Amino acid sequence: MTAILPESLEKLIEQLSRLPTIGRKTAQRLAFFIIQHSPPMAEELAGAISRAGARVRPCRQCFFLAEEDVCAICKAPQRDASVLCIVEESFDVVAFERTGTFRGLYHVLQGKISPLHGVMPESLTIAPLLERMRNAVPPIREVILATSPTVDGDATALYLAEKLRPFGCRMTRIGVGVAIGSSLELADELTLKHALERRQEIS
Amino acid sequence: MTAILPESLEKLIEQLSRLPTIGRKTAQRLAFFIIQHSPPMAEELAGAISRAGARVRPCRQCFFLAEEDVCAICKAPQRDASVLCIVEESFDVVAFERTGTFRGLYHVLQGKISPLHGVMPESLTIAPLLERMRNAVPPIREVILATSPTVDGDATALYLAEKLRPFGCRMTRIGVGVAIGSSLELADELTLKHALERRQEIS
Repeated sequence: MTAILPESLEKLIEQLSRLPTIGRKTAQRLAFFIIQHSPPMAEELAGAISRAGARVRPCRQCFFLAEEDVCAICKAPQRDASVLCIVEESFDVVAFERTGTFRGLYHVLQGKISPLHGVMPESLTIAPLLERMRNAVPPIREVILATSPTVDGDATALYLAEKLRPFGCRMTRIGVGVAIGSSLELADELTLKHALERRQEIS
Repeated sequence: MTAILPESLEKLIEQLSRLPTIGRKTAQRLAFFIIQHSPPMAEELAGAISRAGARVRPCRQCFFLAEEDVCAICKAPQRDASVLCIVEESFDVVAFERTGTFRGLYHVLQGKISPLHGVMPESLTIAPLLERMRNAVPPIREVILATSPTVDGDATALYLAEKLRPFGCRMTRIGVGVAIGSSLELADELTLKHALERRQEIS
C-alpha cells in the first residue's frame, strides 16, 4: 500500500501504536477520531499529555505518582504511617485504594526483581525503602508484601523479607487464592493449589 | 476514594477516556504508561497529536485526509479519475486501499444520512459531490455506492442514487453477503438473507 495518509497522521498513528494494548488498527482509529473531532480536541489532549508528562514525578518518600515533592497519600494526616504496603507499581496503589480498606502508607518498588529481564534489586527502590525503614517516625510495625503472586513477585517478596527481617517488624504477604465471585473452574491449578494449602478453619 | 492522583494526571486520564473504546481503566493504564515511560515519551506523543491536529484537513476534492490542498490519492496520476467510490468515512478509504484492487478515486461523505441522529443530507459532502460530478474531467463513468450495509447506509445509498441518476453514469452498490473466511453460523440473519437473495449462478 502506497502512503496515502498525510505524514503527520502516519507519525501520530506510529506514536499511538507504542502504547500498551494499542495495535496498528486501533491506533489508526484513535488518530482519526482525534483529528476529526468536532470541536477540535487535539490541542487539549496534547496539552494534557504534555502537562502530565512535565509535572508528574515519583513521590520522594514512597515513589507513588505526585506533582509535589510528596504524594497525596504520604501527606494525608489521617493515615497510619506505621503500616507499609509494598507494591510493584503505582497502578497497584490505585487498586488497593479503590478497596477503601487500607489506611497505611505505600512503597512503590517500580518493578519486581527479574534476572531474566535484567531487573536486579538495585534497579528498584529497595535502597530508599531500607533508608525509610531506618528513619521512620513513628517506627514501622508492619510491612505487607503485596508484590504480585508470580514467580518474580514471590522472589521479590522473599528477597525483601530477608532484607527487612533485621528491623524486627511484623511481615505479612497478601492472601492468595480463588478470586471472590469467580468460579473454581476458571482458576488455574497453581491458584487452586495455593487456595488448598492456605485453607482456613471454620470456627 | 479521595483524590490520590495528581491533578494533571487526573486530567490526562479524563482526556484519554474520551477516546472511543477507551474506558476509565484503560485510560488510566495508558496515562501511567505515558508518564512513566523511559526515555520520556510524553513530549513526543503530545507533539505528534498537536502537529497532526494542526496540519491534517479534508482534501478539497474528495474530503479524505490531507496535509495539502488535495490528498495523495486525488493527486496520484496513475489513478482512474472516471470511477468514484463513495464512502462514509476516511477510515473506509484506508480499508479499500488495503485491498490494493481499487484504482479509481473516492468521495468521503463524512457520515451517513440519519434523521434519528440529526444527520441530514446537508450535513454531508453531497453538494460538493454533485458539483464534482458536474465538472469532472474526464467525466465520471461509474459511481460505486460503498456506504455501509446498514439501515442508514442503505438509505444514504438510495438517496445518492436518486441524486446521481441525472448524470447517466453507471451506478453500483458494493456486494453484501457472508464474509470470506467466516462461518455461516456466525453470520446474522439479515446478512444470510441478503446472501441468499444475491446468490449468483455458477457457470
